[in-house]
Amino acid sequence: MAEGKKPTSGVEWRINVEDGSSRTLFPEAGPTCRLWVGLKGLMAGLVSNVWSFLVKAWELGVDDPRKVIHCLKVGMALTVVSLFYYMRPLYEGVGGNAMWAIMTVVVVFENTVGATVSKSLNRVFATTLAGFLAFGVHWVAGQSGEKLEPVIIGSSVFLLASAATFSRFIPSVKQRFDYGAMIFILTFSLVTVSGYRVDKLFKLAQERVSTIIIGTSLCVLVTMLICPIWAGQELHFLIIRNMEKLANSLEGCIMEYFNPDGDHTEGEKQPDKKLLGYKCVLGSKAAEESMANFARWEPAHGRFNFKHPWQQYLKIGASMRSCAYYVEALTSCIDSETQAPEQVKKHMSNNCRKVSSNSCSVIKELVKTMKTMKKSSTIDLLVEEMNSTVQDLQNDLKHLSNAFNQPESPIPEDKKTETNTTTSAATTIPLIEVIPIVTFASLLAEVAARVQDIADAVEELGKLAEFKVADDEKPPQQNQADSRVVAGQV
Amino acid sequence: MAEGKKPTSGVEWRINVEDGSSRTLFPEAGPTCRLWVGLKGLMAGLVSNVWSFLVKAWELGVDDPRKVIHCLKVGMALTVVSLFYYMRPLYEGVGGNAMWAIMTVVVVFENTVGATVSKSLNRVFATTLAGFLAFGVHWVAGQSGEKLEPVIIGSSVFLLASAATFSRFIPSVKQRFDYGAMIFILTFSLVTVSGYRVDKLFKLAQERVSTIIIGTSLCVLVTMLICPIWAGQELHFLIIRNMEKLANSLEGCIMEYFNPDGDHTEGEKQPDKKLLGYKCVLGSKAAEESMANFARWEPAHGRFNFKHPWQQYLKIGASMRSCAYYVEALTSCIDSETQAPEQVKKHMSNNCRKVSSNSCSVIKELVKTMKTMKKSSTIDLLVEEMNSTVQDLQNDLKHLSNAFNQPESPIPEDKKTETNTTTSAATTIPLIEVIPIVTFASLLAEVAARVQDIADAVEELGKLAEFKVADDEKPPQQNQADSRVVAGQV
Repeated sequence: MAEGKKPTSGVEWRINVEDGSSRTLFPEAGPTCRLWVGLKGLMAGLVSNVWSFLVKAWELGVDDPRKVIHCLKVGMALTVVSLFYYMRPLYEGVGGNAMWAIMTVVVVFENTVGATVSKSLNRVFATTLAGFLAFGVHWVAGQSGEKLEPVIIGSSVFLLASAATFSRFIPSVKQRFDYGAMIFILTFSLVTVSGYRVDKLFKLAQERVSTIIIGTSLCVLVTMLICPIWAGQELHFLIIRNMEKLANSLEGCIMEYFNPDGDHTEGEKQPDKKLLGYKCVLGSKAAEESMANFARWEPAHGRFNFKHPWQQYLKIGASMRSCAYYVEALTSCIDSETQAPEQVKKHMSNNCRKVSSNSCSVIKELVKTMKTMKKSSTIDLLVEEMNSTVQDLQNDLKHLSNAFNQPESPIPEDKKTETNTTTSAATTIPLIEVIPIVTFASLLAEVAARVQDIADAVEELGKLAEFKVADDEKPPQQNQADSRVVAGQV
Repeated sequence: MAEGKKPTSGVEWRINVEDGSSRTLFPEAGPTCRLWVGLKGLMAGLVSNVWSFLVKAWELGVDDPRKVIHCLKVGMALTVVSLFYYMRPLYEGVGGNAMWAIMTVVVVFENTVGATVSKSLNRVFATTLAGFLAFGVHWVAGQSGEKLEPVIIGSSVFLLASAATFSRFIPSVKQRFDYGAMIFILTFSLVTVSGYRVDKLFKLAQERVSTIIIGTSLCVLVTMLICPIWAGQELHFLIIRNMEKLANSLEGCIMEYFNPDGDHTEGEKQPDKKLLGYKCVLGSKAAEESMANFARWEPAHGRFNFKHPWQQYLKIGASMRSCAYYVEALTSCIDSETQAPEQVKKHMSNNCRKVSSNSCSVIKELVKTMKTMKKSSTIDLLVEEMNSTVQDLQNDLKHLSNAFNQPESPIPEDKKTETNTTTSAATTIPLIEVIPIVTFASLLAEVAARVQDIADAVEELGKLAEFKVADDEKPPQQNQADSRVVAGQV
């Protein structure tokens, strides 16, 4: 802008701009010019803010296209219901009843099928119930004379609104009928207040209920027929994803502990990111609860029956969180200032890795069980194997202990090769230095115990949901060999 | 019922009932009788269900009377707004606009001031904004002929509803403007669809906005003036309560570990209940976040400014949860099958108790800081003391270690009395048996480290909220003595 103009004074200030060129600076600027510059700055700030917001939104959409589909579904349902009423001459001018259908669609349409169905049923039943009650009150009020009428209406609104509000605090009501209680208060107040003559009111209310039913039916149809998102399925996959994350965290933890500066390029992912997956497990309690709550409103879908035991998923989630607490404790061992000497670590590393990899095998088998929804034939064996490696780990600690207590004691023949290095290493090391690894190993054993709890919870789910036995059974020997290969690889 | 009747046959069946008496059984009963009995059973079941529901509700009310007060407030606001419109002849017959005020009260009135204000502002601004936009679209559609009109209206509803729905997925929007986005969609759809002539529409919209403003003002006034519940204050007290629970859990944990069968009658409460307080800390993340979210909508109240750093409370909460993970790990040590021998436990118990009681002192001082909102003059000293007892605990472990390594080494004179028992005890005990206590002590040291994180977070809060220095400073020596007394008592 400035470069085109001729400078007004003989002296010229020039400034080098980032792209290499230089620009003329004008020494003075009038208030209009400064205002312009200020406005331009403001606009630029606004534009960059809006731009970064749009970029974020775009990333969100790319990350989960189903969210975009949901938005289009809402837009569609609303357009259909709007135009339906807009174009019918029946509703010309009044628009009063059209409102109820539009309002219903806006308020009831939710991301998941379960949430939409739950809100729809709540809305329809609460409206009907409150409508009938309100008629009764209205009739009684109408019979009792003009002076008493506002008193009866006022006190009934006060009492029922207070009671319904209170019911929203009761956990069992809040979980299922929170929205219904609100709609009940709303409808009751509206109907008692909105008119005098009961017969007219009845027609009005009938129309309202029918428009609400049209709105909710449209919502339920759109949400179930066009790319449905089932709360139950979401819960199922959330639990599976969290299991995988937990296994990855555990693996990452062991890798990080025994290879602190180690071969990170080997893995495909940054170990830090993998390691922190357990935090998702810790943070998904609220999501699990709300999904389990909505899932029970859903009809049978995919491999899930109407009476699928969704509550059991919460138990699995709780046992996973309980396991994640210990993984959190393990990660703090990695960052701890005091570390065991390398040779002790090296000695213990083998069995620690085995416990970890066996625990991971159990979790991965559970993931498989959940994914296929078929009873695993190898899970008991894998749990047993995990427990036996935990026993090995504890024996390791015992050997470490023996090394301290009786350095001169005869080592049993069969253990000789295994404990040899320990003995020689440990006798030169004070106990205080092995404390970190002892803690680490104990925590690891606790993790394994928690993994068994998860396995129990999944087994319970299998019983409740009547999982079938897997067809593609491998002979147990081969599986055992598999898990050993995994153990060796980690 | 049955006992009064005379038996119809000569043979009588009698049955002994639990309370010792016996009753006559009637061999035959007609279908009416069976129906009656069935109905009675059904009624009894219903009555007992309703009764237990009422008892639960009553307990809920007694437990937190503010919930009851909230319900009465809702009832009151609704009655006032209902009667206001019911009695004014202006709205006779139509009731259309009265509806908006009633609806606003029902939908906007929330438990805390922050939530109510947030919803009110969202509702007013979203309605206004959507109204203006809808006018524009309506005007444009009106100018473009009868054929194009529904197309323009339909596509604008589709586009804006989809975009607004999508914005609700963006975390920053969801947190603050979720309700506003919904109301925006609702108002926009309603206004674009509800009528043809813009001038009439304008008057209608004006009335609606004014009734909404009346409704929201009433809600905000009632919620702020009659026994207000401030989200900020609730958050503040929640954090304080959770701190106290954490300290109690830690104390309970130590007591339980070192006195498993011990003197439970000494304490006022069941140790189990005290011990499990940390679970509240683990489970209150969602509550903290929603309260912090609402708190920033609240005006200055009590000792909290408008710009009180509520986000810092979330950091304190996170550090408390991080500490609670370790307390959870500690509790599992209590239930563990493998326990260290009594004499080793006894030796370690002194310093473990000290670490625990010093950690508790730190937490209790933090509770005091939070309660008084004044900088503590002794917190640094207490943290230092806690860290030095952690050092003592680690020295204890070192002595334990020395006992294993060099049982014949000369014990330094000043430590002789203290370590004497250990040496004699430990030399006879294999290391494997001390592993549980080593783990326990390491976890306890981690708890102390996490307590320091909490102290740092609270200090940061003190800086951000500009806490003043406490007036009632005691000389540090006395405090130190106090905490020692506490340590001795535990």
